[in-house]
Amino acid sequence: MHRMKKGKIETTPKVPVRNADDLSLAYSPGVAEPCKAIFDDPQSVYDYTVKGNMVAVVSDGTAVLGLGNIGPEAAMPVMEGKAVLFKSFAGVDAFPICLDTNDVDEIVRTVKLMQPTFGGVNLEDIAAPRCFEIEERLKREMNIPVFHDDQHGTAIVTAAGLVNALKISGKAMKEIRVVINGAGAAGIAIMKLLQSMGCKDIILCDSKGAIYEGRPYGMNDLKHEIAQVTNSQHLDGKLGEVIADSDVFVGVSVEGALTKEMVESMNEDPIIFAMANPVPEIMPEDAKEAGASVIGTGRSDFPNQVNNVLAFPGIFRGALDVNATHINEEMKVAAVKAIADLVADAERHADYVIPAPFDKRVAPAVAKAVAQAAMETGVARRQVNAEEVAEKTRRLTMIEHDA
Amino acid sequence: MHRMKKGKIETTPKVPVRNADDLSLAYSPGVAEPCKAIFDDPQSVYDYTVKGNMVAVVSDGTAVLGLGNIGPEAAMPVMEGKAVLFKSFAGVDAFPICLDTNDVDEIVRTVKLMQPTFGGVNLEDIAAPRCFEIEERLKREMNIPVFHDDQHGTAIVTAAGLVNALKISGKAMKEIRVVINGAGAAGIAIMKLLQSMGCKDIILCDSKGAIYEGRPYGMNDLKHEIAQVTNSQHLDGKLGEVIADSDVFVGVSVEGALTKEMVESMNEDPIIFAMANPVPEIMPEDAKEAGASVIGTGRSDFPNQVNNVLAFPGIFRGALDVNATHINEEMKVAAVKAIADLVADAERHADYVIPAPFDKRVAPAVAKAVAQAAMETGVARRQVNAEEVAEKTRRLTMIEHDA
Repeated sequence: MHRMKKGKIETTPKVPVRNADDLSLAYSPGVAEPCKAIFDDPQSVYDYTVKGNMVAVVSDGTAVLGLGNIGPEAAMPVMEGKAVLFKSFAGVDAFPICLDTNDVDEIVRTVKLMQPTFGGVNLEDIAAPRCFEIEERLKREMNIPVFHDDQHGTAIVTAAGLVNALKISGKAMKEIRVVINGAGAAGIAIMKLLQSMGCKDIILCDSKGAIYEGRPYGMNDLKHEIAQVTNSQHLDGKLGEVIADSDVFVGVSVEGALTKEMVESMNEDPIIFAMANPVPEIMPEDAKEAGASVIGTGRSDFPNQVNNVLAFPGIFRGALDVNATHINEEMKVAAVKAIADLVADAERHADYVIPAPFDKRVAPAVAKAVAQAAMETGVARRQVNAEEVAEKTRRLTMIEHDA
Repeated sequence: MHRMKKGKIETTPKVPVRNADDLSLAYSPGVAEPCKAIFDDPQSVYDYTVKGNMVAVVSDGTAVLGLGNIGPEAAMPVMEGKAVLFKSFAGVDAFPICLDTNDVDEIVRTVKLMQPTFGGVNLEDIAAPRCFEIEERLKREMNIPVFHDDQHGTAIVTAAGLVNALKISGKAMKEIRVVINGAGAAGIAIMKLLQSMGCKDIILCDSKGAIYEGRPYGMNDLKHEIAQVTNSQHLDGKLGEVIADSDVFVGVSVEGALTKEMVESMNEDPIIFAMANPVPEIMPEDAKEAGASVIGTGRSDFPNQVNNVLAFPGIFRGALDVNATHINEEMKVAAVKAIADLVADAERHADYVIPAPFDKRVAPAVAKAVAQAAMETGVARRQVNAEEVAEKTRRLTMIEHDA
């Protein structure tokens, strides 16, 4: 299919030029009018051009799916696919920009130079730790939303699942201990998001075990930073040791990392998000047998799929529609709550804590919540009726409902 | 219209994702297959992605239409319009990239870094002399077609008009004297193209008059280069003086630069291309009164409109379809001849030396000729049947025929 179609997107005229009248309006001489209007008022670029609805999907191809560093050309099919999802789920125009460099400075500079064309930047499949610096710098130096989906998309959907899972197990975010296995982009983003939602006891493990301040092996700047804000008891040991007496396991690591014995060592009604792809840290049936109350994975053939598509289309829809300068923590948390709330109390059960990827209610609800949060936290340059953002998203989505 | 539509292009899925089956094919896990195929064989990026049909329309907004240096945001409506024309005339996907820098090194580096996404680069509305160095370096350092339309598009259509005008006046390219008024991007490109088509006697004028080696005023590196290959008699003087006894006037300068007296001082049956916008160097009726045999302008309300849209869509269609590494001189000359040849001997007259912009035969003919020339000169990485290129162009064009 990818070969037959020669790619998965095209650039389509919204105003086709069929004859001389069309030409004089869409191009010379008519086009001079919007040019002059933007020259007079730079912000009107959002009114007269695609910028306000156009997201750059930027990658250097260094961490593509489970394939790793396959380079920018080979990353193109994924970035095109991402563009298809943006449009199909929420009517956001998106365009793949695959960059032929791994250099942080060059990536930052290049993306900044393209700012006149784009209303937002979705970073994708850029390896850690470069992805952190790239996102941080772009957020600081640009005035359009920048969002590294591998970090925040995953974090937002995981957090939404956790919010609902906690309702089932009757535990509170501020009381639970969470062990995150995998200290890469997604693991760190999940840590930060859960903390901003009130979670106080998080332990991050890498392949060597729990990270803590003063660990005499396998540390680096990033892990020192992690150690500052996690594992306050300085627990030492492999995952199998520190997992004991925890309430939640979040795996963004490798197949089979979590055993039934480990699950059995956790507190009562443990919650498991095992998101290694394509084979999770523990298979759902094994986790259930070992006493897990709720289990989510990255796979579509198990319940509770953690799928980023629940987050990024609605997040950018909402951010673009209020012309947000940033996607801040409050907007992410609003997205978490919007996703979680779509699972009604009466419908919620162990196998349904996350909405289905093709639940048509999701993108409109996320877009509305994100737009609202942006307006409330002062990063919106345009005030809108949030319900109209939801309505627009519903109108633009191309997906079939399958909840 | 520009405001109502919020821009003139959109990115549309060729494979919409409506449900879980679509998703698994277009995105994870199905997308891993084309990724792996491209990783194994980098050239297959042309088979599996949009790259082979995708042109970047790159500008820094420094020389936009007649508006000048209005900046990259204000240039966006023009670049979007250009993308619309690429698609409408020849089915070429194009995407506006407006860059927030005027620095040659940065523009070159940025465009090179985006090479994984694009199959060609159309430079647009970049001020001279930077446009020359940018194009030269990109052509040298990239292996995809790079084409500065303000130079070569204008040159190709002007040359096509001249070829047919010479048939009417019964003169030969190698015997005529051409005076080009305006030593900017278009003027220099016209000079070079006419030279590669056999024209031996060209004088370029800037606002100070004829350029010649040793001129004691208003010279720079570029004009020294021009002086090396033009005006071998070292004619000195304003346009009004050096125009005497010439056969062809090409104006890419300013309103009113050519007077009736100047036309009267030219050789018998002079040919005039007066392309200043919106008001030409001389009005067609005045030129006719002064004895001009053929006159062309940039305007749609006069005969013989020099409109770049006759060239660039077909040129890129042909270059992309043979996966050309460059657009070389032979391909440009092939385009000139293809455009000129569409004016049949029996139909040719003073007011019809250039086909109409909406003549549906043009883009297919240009694409075919350019593809053929690319294959014959060794810059094609794919051998195709040139007639099939024409057929494909006819199938993809969205324009209504109005010849």
